Amino acid sequence: MNITVIPAAKDINESKIKDKIVLVIDVLRATSTIATALDNGAKKIIPVLNVQEAIDYKKSNPNYKIGGERNGIKQPGFDFGNSPLEYKEKIVKNETIVITTTNGTRAINHCKSAKKIILLSFLNLNSVNKIVQFEEDIVIICAGTNDLFSIDDGVCAGALIYNLRKNNNCKLGDMGLACLTLYENTRDNLHNLISKCHHYKVLENIGCQFDLEYCLKENTLNIVPIYKDGYFIKNEI
Amino acid sequence: MNITVIPAAKDINESKIKDKIVLVIDVLRATSTIATALDNGAKKIIPVLNVQEAIDYKKSNPNYKIGGERNGIKQPGFDFGNSPLEYKEKIVKNETIVITTTNGTRAINHCKSAKKIILLSFLNLNSVNKIVQFEEDIVIICAGTNDLFSIDDGVCAGALIYNLRKNNNCKLGDMGLACLTLYENTRDNLHNLISKCHHYKVLENIGCQFDLEYCLKENTLNIVPIYKDGYFIKNEI
Repeated sequence: MNITVIPAAKDINESKIKDKIVLVIDVLRATSTIATALDNGAKKIIPVLNVQEAIDYKKSNPNYKIGGERNGIKQPGFDFGNSPLEYKEKIVKNETIVITTTNGTRAINHCKSAKKIILLSFLNLNSVNKIVQFEEDIVIICAGTNDLFSIDDGVCAGALIYNLRKNNNCKLGDMGLACLTLYENTRDNLHNLISKCHHYKVLENIGCQFDLEYCLKENTLNIVPIYKDGYFIKNEI
Repeated sequence: MNITVIPAAKDINESKIKDKIVLVIDVLRATSTIATALDNGAKKIIPVLNVQEAIDYKKSNPNYKIGGERNGIKQPGFDFGNSPLEYKEKIVKNETIVITTTNGTRAINHCKSAKKIILLSFLNLNSVNKIVQFEEDIVIICAGTNDLFSIDDGVCAGALIYNLRKNNNCKLGDMGLACLTLYENTRDNLHNLISKCHHYKVLENIGCQFDLEYCLKENTLNIVPIYKDGYFIKNEI
């Protein structure tokens, strides 16, 4: 299996992702949040690039809910922010939710020429592993933070590679090898490494401590969000 | 001290380097080679972007020597390739040498608006540490390989940060933290990690095994190449 790891959303280009199986990671918090919303029964998640686009969706479809953030904060008129803990079953069940975030949904929207888009987070590592383990090539996209590599996403990529290597001969580029090595050497205390990263501190400063604890737990959800026809649906594993 | 690590030459932009103290790393092999040539007595090293530019320099200055590579290989009409082992004292002493390489001199040439350009490799880690340890901000540029992050450069950045942190309060972004963590966890057997990286294998395949061994030794040279007025000269430490 050939595994390519792209360090940040700005590094996505057509030649790397067209017709490929693409996994997008934004641990803090978009891909953790979308997986949680779907696990709690949301029918569809529509990822969009801009706040205005989300608002326009709701104008055309008043029964849709809209969620997401800018600078980590829920936007005026939105039903949700970007905390996975807001997307509770009693609120999201059978709902269609439009989501826009600074890094995660931007990365997703740059991948539309891929053959398949799958969302990865620590929450659904094993489930994603089961779905992709027989693929010949996968491209893992770390959404990053404001165009820069983000350790939380990189270590999550490393965690998937670590698991895939148990049953596959994985060919890695240097970024993949770096992420794998980071995970291998810190997996007994991942929270310690990730708590030093920029985006972790930003979220801690705006009071998202519970989100941080939630998003760094491995394998709490048995689902994989897969993109089709403009939205993510749940694939139970 | 604020330390910014830029993962590959393509990520250099004016806003990140203008008037900054910039350290360029291309462990395999440009920054190792230039340091070696200066240590062996070369008077000046002029880094240029293109093969033709190097050839033109020699036409205008027949007493100059020219060196470098494309695809790892010495170019027709050149006096040297890019192996540090070619730049022996008896050949380079008091010579002015024009060098062009695929990644290293390209990274250097993208940094011309910096306040200072310093070349770092494993060979001169301690010497560079001594020169930069009292700076407020440094920018470390991993030249990378063909626009991608290269582990050898990243781990060398991590090695410098590891040493700087002994006497400084270093503020790191995520890329710097990743490089530091890679070095901290693999420094007892660096060769093992670096031997898995793409560029190492390319050089191994074209018969550069002795270069690889040479370039991965720490602190064999007590000099720092510093750029001024279009060329590098030796600063003995």
